[in-house]
Amino acid sequence: MYDVIEVRKDFPILSREVNGKPLVYLDNGASAQKPQVVIAAVTQAYSMEYANVHRGLHFLSNLATEKYEAVRGTVARFLHARHEDEIVMTSGTTEGINLVAYGWAMPRFEAGDEIVLSVMEHHANIVPWHFLRERQGVVLKWVDVDETGALPPEKIIDAIGPRTKLVAVTQLSNVLGTRVDVKAICAGARDRGVPVLVDGSQGAVHMPVDVEDIGCDFYAITGHKLYGPSGSGAIWIRRERLAEMRPFLGGGDMIREVHKDVITYADPPMKFEAGTPGIVQQIGLGVALEYLMDLGMENVAAHEERLRDYARSRLDGLNWLQVQGTTPDKAAIFSFTLDGAAHAHDISTVLDKKGVAVRAGHHCAGPLMDHLGLTATCRASFGLYNTETEVDTLVEALELCHDLFG
Amino acid sequence: MYDVIEVRKDFPILSREVNGKPLVYLDNGASAQKPQVVIAAVTQAYSMEYANVHRGLHFLSNLATEKYEAVRGTVARFLHARHEDEIVMTSGTTEGINLVAYGWAMPRFEAGDEIVLSVMEHHANIVPWHFLRERQGVVLKWVDVDETGALPPEKIIDAIGPRTKLVAVTQLSNVLGTRVDVKAICAGARDRGVPVLVDGSQGAVHMPVDVEDIGCDFYAITGHKLYGPSGSGAIWIRRERLAEMRPFLGGGDMIREVHKDVITYADPPMKFEAGTPGIVQQIGLGVALEYLMDLGMENVAAHEERLRDYARSRLDGLNWLQVQGTTPDKAAIFSFTLDGAAHAHDISTVLDKKGVAVRAGHHCAGPLMDHLGLTATCRASFGLYNTETEVDTLVEALELCHDLFG
Repeated sequence: MYDVIEVRKDFPILSREVNGKPLVYLDNGASAQKPQVVIAAVTQAYSMEYANVHRGLHFLSNLATEKYEAVRGTVARFLHARHEDEIVMTSGTTEGINLVAYGWAMPRFEAGDEIVLSVMEHHANIVPWHFLRERQGVVLKWVDVDETGALPPEKIIDAIGPRTKLVAVTQLSNVLGTRVDVKAICAGARDRGVPVLVDGSQGAVHMPVDVEDIGCDFYAITGHKLYGPSGSGAIWIRRERLAEMRPFLGGGDMIREVHKDVITYADPPMKFEAGTPGIVQQIGLGVALEYLMDLGMENVAAHEERLRDYARSRLDGLNWLQVQGTTPDKAAIFSFTLDGAAHAHDISTVLDKKGVAVRAGHHCAGPLMDHLGLTATCRASFGLYNTETEVDTLVEALELCHDLFG
Repeated sequence: MYDVIEVRKDFPILSREVNGKPLVYLDNGASAQKPQVVIAAVTQAYSMEYANVHRGLHFLSNLATEKYEAVRGTVARFLHARHEDEIVMTSGTTEGINLVAYGWAMPRFEAGDEIVLSVMEHHANIVPWHFLRERQGVVLKWVDVDETGALPPEKIIDAIGPRTKLVAVTQLSNVLGTRVDVKAICAGARDRGVPVLVDGSQGAVHMPVDVEDIGCDFYAITGHKLYGPSGSGAIWIRRERLAEMRPFLGGGDMIREVHKDVITYADPPMKFEAGTPGIVQQIGLGVALEYLMDLGMENVAAHEERLRDYARSRLDGLNWLQVQGTTPDKAAIFSFTLDGAAHAHDISTVLDKKGVAVRAGHHCAGPLMDHLGLTATCRASFGLYNTETEVDTLVEALELCHDLFG
């Protein structure tokens, strides 16, 4: 049985107060807090086990290399990837998607080629494609969501045309909480010979992921949202795609030989990891993923679904609150606006006084905001350590907002 | 007075043993160990003060943002930069130089344009330029060092021709320890209207740096070599160059507005920092730089020069040892080979048994290895916490190698 009270004890920051109130941290969509095992692993690495990796032969370098390289296997297990060498370590989803854009798409796409993407993508899965539009005339084909925030897979599949070279789609909207049936999208795209990039920055946090079952070509994750250190992350890239990619970042470690006029590159995944990697943060990411697998992602998902149901029932009772995204199976992410509130930022500021941390703004989802006709929302995004009591605290604080602004 | 025994107490790892011997850490050229203040700052950030930066309005997000953004000022002070907004945070010099290559050079350089660089550059300051050679026909013009490893500035300046668009040069060789008079190079290059990128990955670790005095256009540093966390770093870019650059990594935080068919970008430096940055490691970098400034970089440099003189006198006494790089003012970095040793790796392995951590290999400096006619060297690279006693331990261990292999 998932015991959230016990789980909370693993996270030191959850015992702190903010503005004289117990912290109610509902900003998990932006970044998650870290369990003590992750913090301890980082401390241990710096205090007793630190050296640069790969190029040393001494004890500490070997130790650091072993721990760092073991993370590749941990990420592979977490994502149910078949091959460890399909895991490229990154500083997060942003670097991962840029790697695909620069290393795979840029040299292959021509003017008029199309990328199909949903209107609810995060800027990390938009801006690299805008670059290709600006710089080489690639066409972005946008697929809207319906009024509940749902994205039926056939809408993406129907948007694929003869010039489509890539589908780039999130598994889970960071604003609406919408889950996308990426498996169905991949099946349809594969029939049409089109690779699929899945932005797993949110998805991997809230449900078990099996990249082979999904059938995608690229799956990017962000360590700091997965209860790991900042600056950690990885992208899974199917071997066939890896083989098609040219190197992206140039530097040490990704080469075989460098001479004045000739250069040869290392094999994947090293080919795509230039320079000294984020050694300690990746070691911390490995510990975070082990922590999640120990809890069981099915259990995390079930806990968060209970939270979602409770939060939905409570928020539905507030008839002056407009929640964006109402699909039945959405994740526990609630973006909302409030009648009479001048701005989402005002709500956020009032909630903060009550110790409730939420995010206000465009949530790095410009096209979705345009679609919704909004400039900003407040977003309460739940994580594995949140409780129904915290939902109550949120609702009480919202009622105070309503009193103030309503 | 610089008290190295006191300084050593700041670094927890220095009290540990390796293979039953006290650790003698002479692999600082690859990465430096971390003082307790840095480790504590990282722990504190994750335990009590963590949230994502910039886009939040709640207490923890504001706190993290304040701490993160303060680092920009710290880096500016450390480098004597005039303007904080000339500091772009990176994951290290590799990302910094790739930013310049992709964001500044790639859209501006044409086939036949030239980049002048020294033969002793690190792969981080070679491979991004090789990409431009491979991909768009840019010509790399290499300048050799003399038999002592010296690089007279006029040799670089003389290599500048009408098609030269950039000089890319290290301030301090990671293999030879050679110091380069980058100020003289910049003066000559400026006369010819050619911007200069200085790889400060080693230089900034071993001497005070003043980018305005140097007169360069780009100056990149690596946090983990500066006693800061892995995955931290920054690049100083002169405002005029920043204004010429197009964005490199695409994602959140670096945009002003994103719509379906239109995108506008944030002003520098944010324009060049896509996605969630390395929040905690950059906070740690700030603490590391404060630590260095508290010690005084002049004092660190003076201590390391004493170490260099002592190490040189001891190593010069070993007539079966060939040290590469013999300029009088070199840094305390000693690359060597040993008569009769099958391979640098064998030496490294024997030294490790005595607790002495050195690096063996090509040190990410392929063209220099070609120039020296070697495939690998051993490298003992000293840092601010090393002692003359450790030099003695190194020499004893080398004598053992000589007994074994000689």
